[in-house]
Amino acid sequence: MSSTAGLVIPCKVAWEAGKPLVIEKVEVAPPQAMEVRVKIKYTSLCRTDLYFWEAKGQTPLFPRIFGHEASGIVESVGEGVENLQVGDHVLPVFTGECGDCAHCKSEESNMCDLLRINTDRGVMLSDGKPRFSIKGTPINHFLGTSTFSEYTVVHSGCLAKINRLAPLDKVCILSCGISTGLGATLNVAKPKKGSSVAVFGLGAVGLAAAEGARISGASRIIGIDRNPKRFEEAKKFGVNEFVNPKDHDKPVQEVIAEMTNGGVDRSLECTGNIDAMISAFECVHDGWGVAVLVGVPNKDAVFMTKPINVLNERTLKGTFFGNYKPRTDLPSVVDMYMNKELEVEKFITHRVPFSEINKAFDYMVKGEGLRCIISMEE
Amino acid sequence: MSSTAGLVIPCKVAWEAGKPLVIEKVEVAPPQAMEVRVKIKYTSLCRTDLYFWEAKGQTPLFPRIFGHEASGIVESVGEGVENLQVGDHVLPVFTGECGDCAHCKSEESNMCDLLRINTDRGVMLSDGKPRFSIKGTPINHFLGTSTFSEYTVVHSGCLAKINRLAPLDKVCILSCGISTGLGATLNVAKPKKGSSVAVFGLGAVGLAAAEGARISGASRIIGIDRNPKRFEEAKKFGVNEFVNPKDHDKPVQEVIAEMTNGGVDRSLECTGNIDAMISAFECVHDGWGVAVLVGVPNKDAVFMTKPINVLNERTLKGTFFGNYKPRTDLPSVVDMYMNKELEVEKFITHRVPFSEINKAFDYMVKGEGLRCIISMEE
Repeated sequence: MSSTAGLVIPCKVAWEAGKPLVIEKVEVAPPQAMEVRVKIKYTSLCRTDLYFWEAKGQTPLFPRIFGHEASGIVESVGEGVENLQVGDHVLPVFTGECGDCAHCKSEESNMCDLLRINTDRGVMLSDGKPRFSIKGTPINHFLGTSTFSEYTVVHSGCLAKINRLAPLDKVCILSCGISTGLGATLNVAKPKKGSSVAVFGLGAVGLAAAEGARISGASRIIGIDRNPKRFEEAKKFGVNEFVNPKDHDKPVQEVIAEMTNGGVDRSLECTGNIDAMISAFECVHDGWGVAVLVGVPNKDAVFMTKPINVLNERTLKGTFFGNYKPRTDLPSVVDMYMNKELEVEKFITHRVPFSEINKAFDYMVKGEGLRCIISMEE
Repeated sequence: MSSTAGLVIPCKVAWEAGKPLVIEKVEVAPPQAMEVRVKIKYTSLCRTDLYFWEAKGQTPLFPRIFGHEASGIVESVGEGVENLQVGDHVLPVFTGECGDCAHCKSEESNMCDLLRINTDRGVMLSDGKPRFSIKGTPINHFLGTSTFSEYTVVHSGCLAKINRLAPLDKVCILSCGISTGLGATLNVAKPKKGSSVAVFGLGAVGLAAAEGARISGASRIIGIDRNPKRFEEAKKFGVNEFVNPKDHDKPVQEVIAEMTNGGVDRSLECTGNIDAMISAFECVHDGWGVAVLVGVPNKDAVFMTKPINVLNERTLKGTFFGNYKPRTDLPSVVDMYMNKELEVEKFITHRVPFSEINKAFDYMVKGEGLRCIISMEE
């Protein structure tokens, strides 16, 4: 039992819509049934935070505490929580695993019916209320995680209990983007040793997909990006060939087919651009090629291709969070890092204290670096 | 050695474009290097014959001997043929397996680079000439098989050597349509025992896909067809629920999603209609659903769907000849029949002697029955 269990915790959070975040004191209520209160140790900024912070193209829900890529330690647990104890090291995840629904029971899916990502919900499931407030005014949660806070309350199904020896200031980045790209390759594309893999988009998710290809032993890892500045850094992630679509007059799928005698064995689309999605599908080899869509597009986008591209034995798959079931599978991703199979450090390009969280937003807006770790303890 | 080996064989063939076939005498030259001359015992009519016989929408190549679904016995072999001997029972196949190309070496593909289906070629590969002639005038081959002839010459890579005990008057239908549908389910969709499967189009290929679902132990096999007359017959193939898109105001994928609490586990598209293809994809369950396209569409058709349908962990696959490698895999399909696992008889609805081959065309044009077996020996 921690000394704060059952009590409201006053703590600092960072929040504001579309403007620099302001650090204020909020009150964090104790966890209710099936909930867990977590002391956040490290958090990082992911593009989804930026997207909802900018509040363009979606229904804004403010005031709201952002943040969903993080690591922390269990402070107290609500009624009925059996899989977690005070002191456990955890990664909060934006999507969950109830363990009981058809998706959780399927070996193939991680899209839990109960705890699947919900960008519009700002409250907890059990009572429809938030656990955050400022002087009695409720404040919305974000993605069920709200990790830009010293303490947060999360559904127990959205917490992965990890190896206590894992450094929280590094593995925090495994709770969203890196696992999304890595799992897309390891769990869905599944390239064979010696195969060729094309990765569209060399941001953090794309580089994590490339890292998966490197771990799989792919011999040709072709990075596609419109920003040539990303090519040098991508080499660290195993990318050994580069294509800038702007350098060619023909569609990039044709360029790749020519480079690879008919197409790559696997491709991963990590930009969300609809043209890149179509190219990623059409650039895989007939007979055995598999294309995996990872990036989330504009809601009006339409995927179009000639049916013969499918009939010629190509496969198109989509993935969500790299097909990892948060509770079941994330601990093993952390262990991949502990076993030196997965290299996490190279994704971490910046570090700031919580008081300078706006710098993390600046880096992302400017496209500088990959991940900025925000330390909650100054 | 057969008594006719090395000699030109005069025999009867049926041919004519778009008009009733006429039976005439042709001369069939001996097989050249890597070729085999086969005495056809039984042949059946497949929709592809009809399509090229009608010669609409493709470059006509006449005179031409059609036919590609058949069984026969090896009469003689050309130089270098090591895998077949005089007297072997064989199924000629419209696509081949050279054994040496990247596709043949891949476990996942059956789209042989050398012997892949070629609808435009009317000659043999070795010398660019046909083996058929009438009084010195060459006659084109069709799909490398031309089985509407008492004798034909086929590349040895396009002949599956089968169990000598298998009845040739039945297993002849395994050389094209039935294996295409069956393999789409068994090799590509791979439904689990107790799962739900939707089959679009209840013609011979669709019913073969349903037969695959029955063999796999699927518990719900939903047949979709605009012709309700097909529903009664489909019951024999394990189809136990029916949807006629004409009976509903909403898209059929929505009807199926409602029937199945979110979608079927697997779907197979066996019509070639582009709208059915889109429905087949969108009617599979998120998280784990797999849609397999089998039917060949109009060349101007475009497959379109919202990317979110893919991102929600649906899989779209295409198949060609049920992903069976002709030489490696077809013998086992014949054995499935011999072991009473696969039921072939129910596909055979008509039988005619070779002299009445035009009746087989009539049945198909009118949509009567499934397969009409044409016996070469009256």
